Amino acid sequence: MLRPRLPPLLNAAKRRCLSTAHDAPPASAHVPAAARVDRWLSDFSAGLIAGRAQESFAPERSFWRDMVAFTWSIRTFEGAGQIGQALAATTPSAQPHGWYADGTPTEDATDGSLECWLRFRTAAGGGKALLKLDQEGKASSLFTSLSDLDTRPFATGGRRALGHPCESIDEIGTPRPDRRYWHERRAAALPAALGGEAGEPYVLIVGGGQGGLSLGARLQLLGVPYVVVEADARIGDSWRKRYPGLMLHDPVWYDHLPYMPFPASWPVFTPRDKLADWLQHYATAMDLTVATSTRVTRAVPPADGGGGDGRWEVKLQPAGSTGAEERTSSGGSVTLRPAHVVLATGMSGVPRVPAPPAGGGAAQGPFAGEVMHSSAYPGAGGGRFAGRRAVVVGSNTSAHDICQDLWEQGAQSVTMLQRSAGLVVSETSVLEHGLGSLYSEGALERGVTTELADLVVASAPLRLQEERWREGTARMRRTDASLHARLAAVGYNLDFGEDGTGIFGKSFRRGGGFYIDVGCASLLSDGRVALRSGSGAEIAQIEPHAVRLRSGEALSADLLVYATGFESMHHFVSDLVSPAVAARVGRVWGYGSGAHLDPGPWEGELYLL
Amino acid sequence: MLRPRLPPLLNAAKRRCLSTAHDAPPASAHVPAAARVDRWLSDFSAGLIAGRAQESFAPERSFWRDMVAFTWSIRTFEGAGQIGQALAATTPSAQPHGWYADGTPTEDATDGSLECWLRFRTAAGGGKALLKLDQEGKASSLFTSLSDLDTRPFATGGRRALGHPCESIDEIGTPRPDRRYWHERRAAALPAALGGEAGEPYVLIVGGGQGGLSLGARLQLLGVPYVVVEADARIGDSWRKRYPGLMLHDPVWYDHLPYMPFPASWPVFTPRDKLADWLQHYATAMDLTVATSTRVTRAVPPADGGGGDGRWEVKLQPAGSTGAEERTSSGGSVTLRPAHVVLATGMSGVPRVPAPPAGGGAAQGPFAGEVMHSSAYPGAGGGRFAGRRAVVVGSNTSAHDICQDLWEQGAQSVTMLQRSAGLVVSETSVLEHGLGSLYSEGALERGVTTELADLVVASAPLRLQEERWREGTARMRRTDASLHARLAAVGYNLDFGEDGTGIFGKSFRRGGGFYIDVGCASLLSDGRVALRSGSGAEIAQIEPHAVRLRSGEALSADLLVYATGFESMHHFVSDLVSPAVAARVGRVWGYGSGAHLDPGPWEGELYLL
Repeated sequence: MLRPRLPPLLNAAKRRCLSTAHDAPPASAHVPAAARVDRWLSDFSAGLIAGRAQESFAPERSFWRDMVAFTWSIRTFEGAGQIGQALAATTPSAQPHGWYADGTPTEDATDGSLECWLRFRTAAGGGKALLKLDQEGKASSLFTSLSDLDTRPFATGGRRALGHPCESIDEIGTPRPDRRYWHERRAAALPAALGGEAGEPYVLIVGGGQGGLSLGARLQLLGVPYVVVEADARIGDSWRKRYPGLMLHDPVWYDHLPYMPFPASWPVFTPRDKLADWLQHYATAMDLTVATSTRVTRAVPPADGGGGDGRWEVKLQPAGSTGAEERTSSGGSVTLRPAHVVLATGMSGVPRVPAPPAGGGAAQGPFAGEVMHSSAYPGAGGGRFAGRRAVVVGSNTSAHDICQDLWEQGAQSVTMLQRSAGLVVSETSVLEHGLGSLYSEGALERGVTTELADLVVASAPLRLQEERWREGTARMRRTDASLHARLAAVGYNLDFGEDGTGIFGKSFRRGGGFYIDVGCASLLSDGRVALRSGSGAEIAQIEPHAVRLRSGEALSADLLVYATGFESMHHFVSDLVSPAVAARVGRVWGYGSGAHLDPGPWEGELYLL
Repeated sequence: MLRPRLPPLLNAAKRRCLSTAHDAPPASAHVPAAARVDRWLSDFSAGLIAGRAQESFAPERSFWRDMVAFTWSIRTFEGAGQIGQALAATTPSAQPHGWYADGTPTEDATDGSLECWLRFRTAAGGGKALLKLDQEGKASSLFTSLSDLDTRPFATGGRRALGHPCESIDEIGTPRPDRRYWHERRAAALPAALGGEAGEPYVLIVGGGQGGLSLGARLQLLGVPYVVVEADARIGDSWRKRYPGLMLHDPVWYDHLPYMPFPASWPVFTPRDKLADWLQHYATAMDLTVATSTRVTRAVPPADGGGGDGRWEVKLQPAGSTGAEERTSSGGSVTLRPAHVVLATGMSGVPRVPAPPAGGGAAQGPFAGEVMHSSAYPGAGGGRFAGRRAVVVGSNTSAHDICQDLWEQGAQSVTMLQRSAGLVVSETSVLEHGLGSLYSEGALERGVTTELADLVVASAPLRLQEERWREGTARMRRTDASLHARLAAVGYNLDFGEDGTGIFGKSFRRGGGFYIDVGCASLLSDGRVALRSGSGAEIAQIEPHAVRLRSGEALSADLLVYATGFESMHHFVSDLVSPAVAARVGRVWGYGSGAHLDPGPWEGELYLL
């Protein structure tokens, strides 16, 4: 997931311990930043109690974005009036108090504004906030988030498990008749969860990829009973099944899992198998309760009867083990009654393959070569497709990767059929203008950990982010000018997002529509991979030994790959639960910007884990 | 490994950002600590150049301990005169320069001394130092260590691998004909190392436990060709083969492996299988070059012919695979010619079983029950030894653990035969008075990372540490007073080290002779596990259904476990290389204190990884 580059204010905000250069001292310069924050906190705290907190915010252009702490949801409010009303409505139950500045504020000399992390408490637990003050001393934005629950702290650090079956160090010396060794207790966890012995899981997580495992880890350490259900035989298989040259295009600082970050030696870009192995290890090292080779076949929500008492009824079945190394389900169908069901089934649903071209061709016979969707592409290593004449339909990342792989491994000819416009960017511009300010070694050196970076991104209302995306896209265009010129010269259809928000907008709204170049751009630019684009590049007819385009051109071919993407994960809801519930949930991804292929709207704003 | 609790000076030294209370201002109080350090650094730097560096040290009671930076060894020098000579001898080649204080000094109000971390550079790379100044402004101790080599930096952080087969982000977009996917490159690493294809490994590491893997990781990231050779089928098996209830007694903060620390949720005390799995995962996640199911059968050093050109000649053979999941050797015998051989074969050599008692018993017949060394003890789970009458010979940790396990899992009777005195301590006293000041959540909160803690311990000459050990042992005795009284009351033979250095001295000198209580002390105190101690507890005769002690008592028995320890790892040197080389290397462990069972002396001082 790409994140926008933040404007100079926030970059400067992260340079702790470095002095800020001042061109001309702003009006507020004579009052130290820390004092300005303290004054605001004092006024704001009093205002919360007196019901006039809106006075602490800039009247027009101000935002309050809350993640759980006040609203138990993700909400953004704009303008002092709306903010004041929302605070008044939520403060009585949230009972916010104990505000203080966490660290030193950072100032932006250009406009006299400052930014400061805060801590506070609510009736439920502890919170973190990010405050931005304008030079009048009003809040231009406040982001509040809940960090921990008093009644259910995370079992880490000083609260971690002992290892011994007791609660305190003093009890370690107590002998235990019929002691179960640790590995026996561990092995019993899953059968107990599935057999209802441990009590019904409170949360059932469908899917054991990075999303499902991350959530499982959080619940594990909160002591909330859960189970992760994974259809594949081993954790990580969903990645192992991808084509062999696959690498992550997001850099390592952006990819850490909670509690167990990648080591400092981990490569910047993670290869497929390395990621799969790490996920498998994560599930083990974090002692997660995971059922592999198990499929959810049906999930009936409480509103539709479900399991009674406000519970879901979820049916699990063995998914046809293929030599599973890990625990499988109890062998037969199991019915669980969780309070919550989470679908962590991944961005991609079923492969989408276009309908065959209408009419014609029957007399000529079917395609004599191999046809496959990109999800079934096995890789061209070992000369598997050497000498082949390949046509790849699509211009998403898989299309580019597959074209590159075919060329590198000796295909005779490779042609990409680009049906819709896309954006190609260099990894350099992504790191420099996209992620680098928050997710990089440089960011780490400035004290911006992944956790902090994630909070910074979460703090920005999407309406403000769109401005940054346009700025970032413009910078990237300058960096990638010659790359784009070379691609345009061979007919590549480039688009920078309807409103110039580039890969950032495309990411948040569509989850695709761009390619981070890892070699295919060069091949396209100089014709080593041929390109056909536009409406004339549509397939009109498939012949036994060729693909005929709408333009009339016949491309000699004995390999046809449909890199045409996947249906939305939305269909899992429809299949597992019901079409009615799927309609109520709405389509997954996007945030209702109204842009092309943004499936929104959602209620509230999108927060992507 | 236990480390001594440090005296108040060093504890205070770690409390960054907390003010120190002053009872009576010492003479030097009016000069800020940072200025005192700067003055010393200035004088010392000048003194190094002018050959009068000894003037910076207290004339009598001062130490300079160097780890690699100056001496390319581990050396301790005492007294300004000796220190000055050693500095003069090493400075011309080390060329130390660029000294500066790293962080703020911490002061001890009681004697006006202060402590400060320093950084410096040498001709070879960067260094870290720890300086202690007395109130006269002279160094009472200086610890210097080399952190990194300029010509061979560790491939971490900003120097980590890219993942793509290229050196810089800008080259990522370059297509590569015949590209080998990452997992293919990874799979080729071991065969290449063993086949000499990658060039001979520079270092051959015998043993794939935590020591061998840690060293392998360092060499991996230094780009030094190496291979780890492990006889077992899987990394971690050496731990999996131990008895099932085994847990680490050192707490997690003490146990982290380099680059990949345990997650914040990891239990304080690590169970056997969890550790085994983590080690297995470590080897994979760190991309280490490891040959499993492979044994070193012979290692001929350069001096004895070896592989020529100053190289060893080392023969490897498959070790009889048992369904190895990981790469095995090439199938037959392989000969390698490394420049260096490291034995990371573990603390324990072959099991030591006492000779059977002389004379008598032949007429009665052999023992009718089961006999085994503790290393073959399978655990009593599942009722395996329920109802048995067990005699356990020895009073080391395994003896206590096995007695406890037998009692917990339903043995009819358990008797421990304590032949030599030992020390029993509670985990509470170990954490409070042993490790806690440096290895704990509290230490972390004070900014003492594991890396820093390790440096602090490494910085102290053993002669100074012995004083601390006595102090720590005295504190532990007070905490454990009632525990000791209860044990003494049933005849347990307690010893606190010849010079009162307790578990610390025993650890450093012998690697044993104590038990950290995880339940057996309670069983011994109230007789649920019987105890026979002293010379009368030696076995005089083994009868078919009993063990007869020298005291004349016959203990009914159908299970006899020899928890009698292991030979030194020293024998590996003798077996693999030669007895002559073994004699030259000397016995492993200890440091020549002259204390009982300290196998030293070593040249220089011991540094235990």
